[in-house]
Amino acid sequence: MKQNKYDDPQFFDKYSQMPRSTGGLKEAGEWPALRAMLPDMRGKRVLDLGCGFGWHCRYAREQGASTVLGLDISEKMLERARALSDDPAISYRCLAMEDIDFAAEEFDVVISSLAFHYIQDLEEVYRQIHHSLVPGGAFILSFEHPIFTARSAQDWHYGAAGERLHWPVDDYQSEGPRVANFLETEVVKYHRTVATHLNLLIGAGFTIKELSEPQPAIELLDKYDGMRDELRRPMFLIISAVK
Amino acid sequence: MKQNKYDDPQFFDKYSQMPRSTGGLKEAGEWPALRAMLPDMRGKRVLDLGCGFGWHCRYAREQGASTVLGLDISEKMLERARALSDDPAISYRCLAMEDIDFAAEEFDVVISSLAFHYIQDLEEVYRQIHHSLVPGGAFILSFEHPIFTARSAQDWHYGAAGERLHWPVDDYQSEGPRVANFLETEVVKYHRTVATHLNLLIGAGFTIKELSEPQPAIELLDKYDGMRDELRRPMFLIISAVK
Repeated sequence: MKQNKYDDPQFFDKYSQMPRSTGGLKEAGEWPALRAMLPDMRGKRVLDLGCGFGWHCRYAREQGASTVLGLDISEKMLERARALSDDPAISYRCLAMEDIDFAAEEFDVVISSLAFHYIQDLEEVYRQIHHSLVPGGAFILSFEHPIFTARSAQDWHYGAAGERLHWPVDDYQSEGPRVANFLETEVVKYHRTVATHLNLLIGAGFTIKELSEPQPAIELLDKYDGMRDELRRPMFLIISAVK
Repeated sequence: MKQNKYDDPQFFDKYSQMPRSTGGLKEAGEWPALRAMLPDMRGKRVLDLGCGFGWHCRYAREQGASTVLGLDISEKMLERARALSDDPAISYRCLAMEDIDFAAEEFDVVISSLAFHYIQDLEEVYRQIHHSLVPGGAFILSFEHPIFTARSAQDWHYGAAGERLHWPVDDYQSEGPRVANFLETEVVKYHRTVATHLNLLIGAGFTIKELSEPQPAIELLDKYDGMRDELRRPMFLIISAVK
């Protein structure tokens, strides 16, 4: 059940053309919110789960992290990540998040950006992350918001003239897979309620420190079509937790 | 800005006819979830904020609470609550939640059921509650879900035949008052995002223990019209927090 769409050449090409792929963190609407929730990384051992092109890995090093390990299931994503930096303190490993098995207290900070909605069994992944963190270690994660994942269609409700009337929610309490369309490809995302997301983290031993349902950075509101609609419903949920 | 619709005779009459008013806790769809999140109350000093007819106050005493104080802004609600029990260990006081000012560590457990969405400044109320609880004390609260309060209309999106197509979300990031219609009366509810709700509690010093977006009890699904639609979007959010 481990999904690896990013090694599909067509999907990879389309993903590579997204603003966040060509322009990096500054083109990701949720980045200011995520950045504000990251801990001081000076001298820290950082793990990035679902690192993709490695933008957060390089950022962690810029902020003084001593070592960074980026994991991703996609060789193609990691190939690009490796090409973007020759920093010897950053290493990349091709591994599904479901297969992590680190030693106790191997990391001070664990980051995961927009990857967990692809994971079927988060409980075990969270337990592994908790095990791999030092006491007091930080876990900052983001994923697609339950309001966004509830319906497979993951789209607005439109009026007769094609205008966006509102965001439709349905099947919210029915957790499980949703076959969604992302970049003209069918991808399976796992819908969980807000309560389940928080309870899984708490159950794994984490303390919830802060939540964010990020709004786009003001400078992006008029830069991209439809960005102002992001104020009408949350697309992502970011959580800062501590061991 | 303290709202007291429940002393309005017409509103009070209509509220008095709701299943949860005539039948009590067993007729409240969210009650099984709320009950499961309540702590052991034996020998505990319990405060119920927005106690209404006092159902939770009486339940706390049945579970062995030593004393229960129920607060409500409505004299009419408290009049009925007093008529429903002469238990000397339960006392009722007519006071707006915004005006609480208890001594430090006066309570072991604080409950509030479906009242906080009427409060404009929750931050100060949460601080007061934290102050009034003993260390380790439990705070269990429920309120209307942000998915439910985002739009003032608080209603389904209907098809041509009057069928419920989905639950519309809009204006989610715009926090503040919503003039909603409840029991044919205009009431002001305050919409806050999920993140704000959690961050306010954490900011006041609480640790989040568990969340619930309750589904109706199975035995109620076919008892009331439309109850099965409650599975399509969450109406309430229940939080268990600890000082």
